[in-house]
Amino acid sequence: MSKLKTFLVGKPLKSSDIHHEKLSVFRGLPILSSDAISSVAYAVEEILWVLIPVIGLASFKYLGYVTLAILGLLSILIFSYRQTINSYPKGGGSYIVSKENLGEIPSLVAGASLTIDYILTVAVSTTAGVAAITSAFPILLRFKLELTIIIILTMAIGNLRGIRDSAKIFSLPTYFFLVICIIMVGTGLFKYFILGIQPVPNPEITHQIGDLTIFLFLKAFSSGCSALTGIEAVSDGVANFKDPAPKHAKQVLYLMFLIVFIIFGGISYLATIYHAFPTLDKTVVSQIAEQVFGKGSLLFLVMQFSTTLILIMAANTAFSDFPLLLSFISKDGYAPRQFAKRGDRLSFSNGILFLSLAAIVLVIIFRGENHLLIPLYSVGVFISFTLSQSGMVVKWYKQKTNGWIHKAMINGIGATITFVTAIVVSINKFKDGAWIVFILVPAVILLMKRINRHYKKVAAQLSLDNNYFPQFNETEAKRFIVPVASLNEAVIKTINYAKCLSNDITAFHISTDDAETEKLKVKWEKHNIDIPLIIKKDEYRDVLNPLLKFIDSEEFASKKQDMITVVIPQFVTEKWWGNLLHNQTAVFMKRTLLKRKNIAVISVPFIIKQQKL
Amino acid sequence: MSKLKTFLVGKPLKSSDIHHEKLSVFRGLPILSSDAISSVAYAVEEILWVLIPVIGLASFKYLGYVTLAILGLLSILIFSYRQTINSYPKGGGSYIVSKENLGEIPSLVAGASLTIDYILTVAVSTTAGVAAITSAFPILLRFKLELTIIIILTMAIGNLRGIRDSAKIFSLPTYFFLVICIIMVGTGLFKYFILGIQPVPNPEITHQIGDLTIFLFLKAFSSGCSALTGIEAVSDGVANFKDPAPKHAKQVLYLMFLIVFIIFGGISYLATIYHAFPTLDKTVVSQIAEQVFGKGSLLFLVMQFSTTLILIMAANTAFSDFPLLLSFISKDGYAPRQFAKRGDRLSFSNGILFLSLAAIVLVIIFRGENHLLIPLYSVGVFISFTLSQSGMVVKWYKQKTNGWIHKAMINGIGATITFVTAIVVSINKFKDGAWIVFILVPAVILLMKRINRHYKKVAAQLSLDNNYFPQFNETEAKRFIVPVASLNEAVIKTINYAKCLSNDITAFHISTDDAETEKLKVKWEKHNIDIPLIIKKDEYRDVLNPLLKFIDSEEFASKKQDMITVVIPQFVTEKWWGNLLHNQTAVFMKRTLLKRKNIAVISVPFIIKQQKL
Repeated sequence: MSKLKTFLVGKPLKSSDIHHEKLSVFRGLPILSSDAISSVAYAVEEILWVLIPVIGLASFKYLGYVTLAILGLLSILIFSYRQTINSYPKGGGSYIVSKENLGEIPSLVAGASLTIDYILTVAVSTTAGVAAITSAFPILLRFKLELTIIIILTMAIGNLRGIRDSAKIFSLPTYFFLVICIIMVGTGLFKYFILGIQPVPNPEITHQIGDLTIFLFLKAFSSGCSALTGIEAVSDGVANFKDPAPKHAKQVLYLMFLIVFIIFGGISYLATIYHAFPTLDKTVVSQIAEQVFGKGSLLFLVMQFSTTLILIMAANTAFSDFPLLLSFISKDGYAPRQFAKRGDRLSFSNGILFLSLAAIVLVIIFRGENHLLIPLYSVGVFISFTLSQSGMVVKWYKQKTNGWIHKAMINGIGATITFVTAIVVSINKFKDGAWIVFILVPAVILLMKRINRHYKKVAAQLSLDNNYFPQFNETEAKRFIVPVASLNEAVIKTINYAKCLSNDITAFHISTDDAETEKLKVKWEKHNIDIPLIIKKDEYRDVLNPLLKFIDSEEFASKKQDMITVVIPQFVTEKWWGNLLHNQTAVFMKRTLLKRKNIAVISVPFIIKQQKL
Repeated sequence: MSKLKTFLVGKPLKSSDIHHEKLSVFRGLPILSSDAISSVAYAVEEILWVLIPVIGLASFKYLGYVTLAILGLLSILIFSYRQTINSYPKGGGSYIVSKENLGEIPSLVAGASLTIDYILTVAVSTTAGVAAITSAFPILLRFKLELTIIIILTMAIGNLRGIRDSAKIFSLPTYFFLVICIIMVGTGLFKYFILGIQPVPNPEITHQIGDLTIFLFLKAFSSGCSALTGIEAVSDGVANFKDPAPKHAKQVLYLMFLIVFIIFGGISYLATIYHAFPTLDKTVVSQIAEQVFGKGSLLFLVMQFSTTLILIMAANTAFSDFPLLLSFISKDGYAPRQFAKRGDRLSFSNGILFLSLAAIVLVIIFRGENHLLIPLYSVGVFISFTLSQSGMVVKWYKQKTNGWIHKAMINGIGATITFVTAIVVSINKFKDGAWIVFILVPAVILLMKRINRHYKKVAAQLSLDNNYFPQFNETEAKRFIVPVASLNEAVIKTINYAKCLSNDITAFHISTDDAETEKLKVKWEKHNIDIPLIIKKDEYRDVLNPLLKFIDSEEFASKKQDMITVVIPQFVTEKWWGNLLHNQTAVFMKRTLLKRKNIAVISVPFIIKQQKL
């Protein structure tokens, strides 16, 4: 087992091996913006999913307006996050900003929303990445789910090994995607406007059966908001930049805005002129690429391949950010403590395992269908946007530094708009799946509160301030009981060891089979074992309860406030499979005995040598 | 957890609660023959699966011949088993007969074949039972697999509770099935011969594309041999009969022959005149019942329902017989010892769990498809028939009692015929799935041999005949080490307990975080802990290896042949979920330390009180 682990995860690393390579703008941009940029792979498609069934061809007239509304929202967010970056040069995620400025419950709401979001980032990005592949190779559609799971597992292993985000190779996919997208937008426009090539009319697009109502517009807007997921990554990661970090972070923020503007706007415009039509089999981006570059052409394949790559990078940001967030929550005592420990390879292994497991479960439930997962996605994102912006408003109000009203206004507008968006998205996507988020977030918050209560209670019990320093009676502690099933080497070793610590040893045997008991008695005499052997019958073939009953009985007469000692011979097999061939009586016995606060258990190992299987 | 177990399985029973109610012929017949009788539910169908695709309508001309050949084989087996019953009044299963007369390897072959057979009995009978239901209610076809698994789990729980085979209610389904079958055969013949009703011609039956070759006949015969599974049950269960047991067992054997003859012959004949056509959706028996009783009629539904019931009874015989067989194999040291222990409810719980798990895996692999499972079934059955009959021949030869030649002849013919059948079935079904049996049987035998070797080795190591009675140095054993992460109530309790047993105690701290270590030092002084505190740094955030290194180091200087003692404070949470919130460091530490034969580990419990979740 441990060899397998080393093979997969690598050899342990020293604590001092942690080193934070600081990022330049050129290196930071691809790493922190891959999540936001990659969202264009599904956002335009999601808008069309809403419009086309109702208004048919007219969708392409209104797609632009929806896109503009979303880009408008994006620019407001950029202004708001600019201020967060200035105020939190060490990184200001929604959880931290809420905790500092809004208090416990808002920070838990942010924590819960972010937890669900990160899991969704992995699920949504990998399924979208697989969709980009299957659009090019429909033969792989059958293995959609398997492919998605394999990608998630590979990322989990990679991150357990501790791939650094900062690895140079990680910048390539984003720039590559950027370049190919710009080529596609340019070629698409050239073909349409200069060469005058008309797209093939798509017969599947239905006729208009309704009008563009404000309701439909808001619904399309809600769907498109999935384009805005991931933009908070820059403000989370300020600390990773070279000095002056806030300045570099802001430059990355502006560049990211520019890129999303060009790519999202460009693809949305291409969808309009090329009449792309969303289906479960072929993504909208792949349809555009097919028309622009030609069916089966090399550039088409390159486009699909690079879309998959940047989506995997996006999923990977969740793998590097979420375990870190969880370690903060864990250190604050709201998540199991195991999440705060770095593993052998210095990564937060438990967080990585939890994230990949949760994402896999989600992907299986939604049958690897990207389109079904997205409605769950935006709600949590906008809840945490709102909390983070509101936190900033409160911060300005409390600090009242120079120009605070102006700053509070900017974040206030951000908070209001994101809050309104959160409500719009929730209403529009509620029955498509957002309701799940409204069950999960409160459930997670409740769980975090309970965990916190538990840890507080434990800390109180362990605290030395209780001034409770129990003393134990030496004579009682030296009353040793050795449970014996039959007389063998292991028992002899146990008794001889026990004799070193005490001279008040009793052997205790539960008789479930008269013949066995008789054999034991004979051997006991033959080998002159000079400690008393107590034999009790049990009708339930149970070895534990009779022992506990004996300890509690008048015959043994121990006092509740004193410790007594049970000494157990424990078989230890050299190889893991040996355990399958032995009753784990010693282990069960120990587990049950230790539930009594006044019984200490000594395990005396007897190593069983094994041949190879 | 333990409450859930009690709810599902019931309260523990006393050993003395085992009581064997002896069976009369009337009560024994349904219990011991349900497996054999229920086989008719799929045997005729299996023959037609082979014939119809090749010779089309002509199949119904030859179905009778195949049926007669199988009934002929059955009569030979009845004669042979009659003698086994006489010789093994306490029950002569194939494993026992082989072990006594043929030696280790043949007995393991029998054991392995029977193991695979019993698992298949559960898988084949439950899938056939579900097929009987889905033939009546095609809407349930989608849930075929789920239904099968639910039935297996229900049987597992029932048998863990310890339903007695002998429960009166268990006789009903067999007699019920018998009656309804006879009614169906009678009505079917009456409608055809007296009323002259002609069956609707089935358009799906293809034209003849080949001839009935000897090869095709043997293949059909091999498929139909699934009708003979389960007939050895009577000779296994002789001991369950009222005195004179062998006499009653033989009467049951004859009656079983008569019933199989009537039902199998009758249904085969009905299939001939009503031109039933096997499909994966509708069983042959259901098609006959539909034609005889009328589509959707009450009697049709009763027929389907009672078929399901008797098939479940058949599967249930595996649940009562297999765990018993496994307990014999386990007592002989060829299977893990856990299989030889009776559980709380006096049933062999581990055997039951293993059987249901294995059957579920098999059912899932074969997608709940009865027709795909059957080719695996007969091979093992005929291997164990052959071994059991050969064992009897050897027994007669060795004993040379009165008339032994005559008796040896009968069993010899049985052995020869079943051996030939085993070969015929193996060849004909090899590529349909029987090859799996030829991989599994040797694999299981190898495993049993290895397990046996392990137990022998362990017994040798534990044997007192080695005359190795190690004595330990008292001073060394009293060298106690207490690993300490921080100073709290649990550590204080541990140290104070340790002081009762020794006055040579060292506290050992691994520093992974300087601030934590500093805090510990301050507290250590503040509370005047009067034992030395050794602090070691570790770069790998590992608490175990540094401790082992310290024990081995010159600084500590223990001698290999002596035991030393590590005392560990162990958190014990009151409720199971508490464990999820604490690093299980104590448990991991203990497990690793105990791999050293010279380290004893004392666990000192510290009970953590918990609120409700």
